[in-house]
Amino acid sequence: MTDEDKNEMVVTPWEVKGKVDYERLIQEFGTQPLTEELLQKLAKHTDGLHLQLARKLFYSHRDLDVVLDLYEKGTKFVLYTGRGPSGPVHIGHLVPWIFTKHLQEKFETRLYFQMTDDEKFVIEDDAKLAENTRFGYENALDLVALGFKPEDTFIIYDVQDIDLLYDIALEVAKRITYSTAKATFGFQDSTNLGWIFWPAIQAVPCFLHKKLTGENVPALIPAAIDQDPFWRITRDIAQKLGYYKPAQIHCRFLPGLGIGGKMSASEPETAIFTVDQPDIVKRKVWNAFTGGKGTLAEQKKYGGDPEVCTIFQYFLYLFEEDDKKLSERKRRCIAGEIMCGECKTELTGRLNKFLAEHQKKREKAKDIVKRFHIKR
Amino acid sequence: MTDEDKNEMVVTPWEVKGKVDYERLIQEFGTQPLTEELLQKLAKHTDGLHLQLARKLFYSHRDLDVVLDLYEKGTKFVLYTGRGPSGPVHIGHLVPWIFTKHLQEKFETRLYFQMTDDEKFVIEDDAKLAENTRFGYENALDLVALGFKPEDTFIIYDVQDIDLLYDIALEVAKRITYSTAKATFGFQDSTNLGWIFWPAIQAVPCFLHKKLTGENVPALIPAAIDQDPFWRITRDIAQKLGYYKPAQIHCRFLPGLGIGGKMSASEPETAIFTVDQPDIVKRKVWNAFTGGKGTLAEQKKYGGDPEVCTIFQYFLYLFEEDDKKLSERKRRCIAGEIMCGECKTELTGRLNKFLAEHQKKREKAKDIVKRFHIKR
Repeated sequence: MTDEDKNEMVVTPWEVKGKVDYERLIQEFGTQPLTEELLQKLAKHTDGLHLQLARKLFYSHRDLDVVLDLYEKGTKFVLYTGRGPSGPVHIGHLVPWIFTKHLQEKFETRLYFQMTDDEKFVIEDDAKLAENTRFGYENALDLVALGFKPEDTFIIYDVQDIDLLYDIALEVAKRITYSTAKATFGFQDSTNLGWIFWPAIQAVPCFLHKKLTGENVPALIPAAIDQDPFWRITRDIAQKLGYYKPAQIHCRFLPGLGIGGKMSASEPETAIFTVDQPDIVKRKVWNAFTGGKGTLAEQKKYGGDPEVCTIFQYFLYLFEEDDKKLSERKRRCIAGEIMCGECKTELTGRLNKFLAEHQKKREKAKDIVKRFHIKR
Repeated sequence: MTDEDKNEMVVTPWEVKGKVDYERLIQEFGTQPLTEELLQKLAKHTDGLHLQLARKLFYSHRDLDVVLDLYEKGTKFVLYTGRGPSGPVHIGHLVPWIFTKHLQEKFETRLYFQMTDDEKFVIEDDAKLAENTRFGYENALDLVALGFKPEDTFIIYDVQDIDLLYDIALEVAKRITYSTAKATFGFQDSTNLGWIFWPAIQAVPCFLHKKLTGENVPALIPAAIDQDPFWRITRDIAQKLGYYKPAQIHCRFLPGLGIGGKMSASEPETAIFTVDQPDIVKRKVWNAFTGGKGTLAEQKKYGGDPEVCTIFQYFLYLFEEDDKKLSERKRRCIAGEIMCGECKTELTGRLNKFLAEHQKKREKAKDIVKRFHIKR
């Protein structure tokens, strides 16, 4: 295998490999970039542009324009996103949830949130279903801790709530051939039957609102772009079933602390989990991959590279809301005026402050999480 | 297509074509014939041999000997069979249910009965799920009318009761690859995802008893031999999941009234439905395919052929319990002493008497059918 092969981009809902070329994903997946015009249309309803849009974390979409047009004419929409509960939640997961909460507040709309314990169980060889289910309930605490409105937030635990999902899943599954699924997801002869069926389950929350309320409105899905293949097939069959096509707004993958911003479930040191204690956070940040040079002297002379620095990405995405201060940090890094240690120390402080607050809210969430269950 | 091609045997859980060679099915499916020795072993527990065994309607098995050995050592078993509700129940469906009831009574054991509205929906292009579900509840009345014990009979309506099934279905589905399913069921690229997943749902009642009661006992499945492929893959994974392999006892397909004993849902004239009225029954029987000759004179001279006669099969399977009278009818037919009209008239009388009783019990079943639901 050559270095080039190793670095080849592979992006599926279950695997992200190589250096991700986000512009190429727009081409390959056939999605649309978020244009300035569309952002302004959105901003009219949201009192300005959310940081994650302004900083291009969310950067691509399908039918966001359609959803906004409908909205302006009086047809609301629902939000839908989710989580594959195979372990604890990390900071990277929270970022798009924070954006989702912003949309929920500004548009005063429902969120359906799917905990896909079934998916994680069928795709991971060693997974135990009871463990995935348990992580689903654990992970819900992080969602609730962010301050979603219980009256507008409906968590679906797939295995527990399958009775709400199964009839719609059958309608979906009947209209997707193995051929289509194979082409879309790369299924092979060795793929198991649970995995093959699963895309039908993931489609259901796009359509569930009508069954629950009688209202036929589109779903808008904020999610990382690797999830797009699901919605491609869901969009193909939506209208045949009498629903709107689900719209999407796609974000980039959130960087971990490893080389090249990799975050891997198998390498817990590359992610800050929401339950991590301050000394753990300090250690992880201290060991993070940065854009710094080999020695302080070199770095002072040549400057660092914030573009590849995982620490800088944390400031960019979540921990420096002030654009001017962010620019100034970037400038000073490039100019060799600030060293990695200083950035790491500052980020550790902000992370631990955030986590201390979050962990308190997460404890309180235990008392109210039941109010967020779709069966309430 | 040559005549030979047209008559080529195809037997899958969803298609039966051509002249069925039951002995060849034993070879091809790799099941065991019911030997005289095994029948005697069974008869010890059942006060003699049931008519459907004596007359070889049930003729093949997997692990019936194992189940009986376990039983004799104190490990009970549960019964499991089911029905794909895509229309009304006909007499042919009742025959193995009657045998199942006999086993339930003699072994004082539980029956799990699966109404597979999900299956029928995903395999039939034009099916509507609500219709299949409705037929499920309708068809349950026929089961109840046969006199099963409510305390020992547990009807599973797949869509309604999916919450009981889904976790076990995931455990099963995870352990069956597409490759295995393709080889077993002949799935193709054009097969839909619901159909592909479905074998995992059909496996669940083999294992459900342990979840409900904590008792790990084998399931014995009385069913037509075309269902065997399901149990082949279920048997392959049972022990990995900590269960006994399901055992089976296989029956022949029950003959309809068409040429060659065909019974087809698309040709309602070939089946006597349990809700048919006397004049309809009379007409269907009158138009049935028999072993008679073209003219009365010929038939008196050369005799008829009871082996191919659909009317005779009805006497054989259900409507002549007296072996001597059945033999006498056969002898007289071959000898040209009895004409088709006489047999048809007699069968019509017996059918209508049976149906009048059944329809009364079926009406009464409406009051108690809820007591048979697995969620009671």
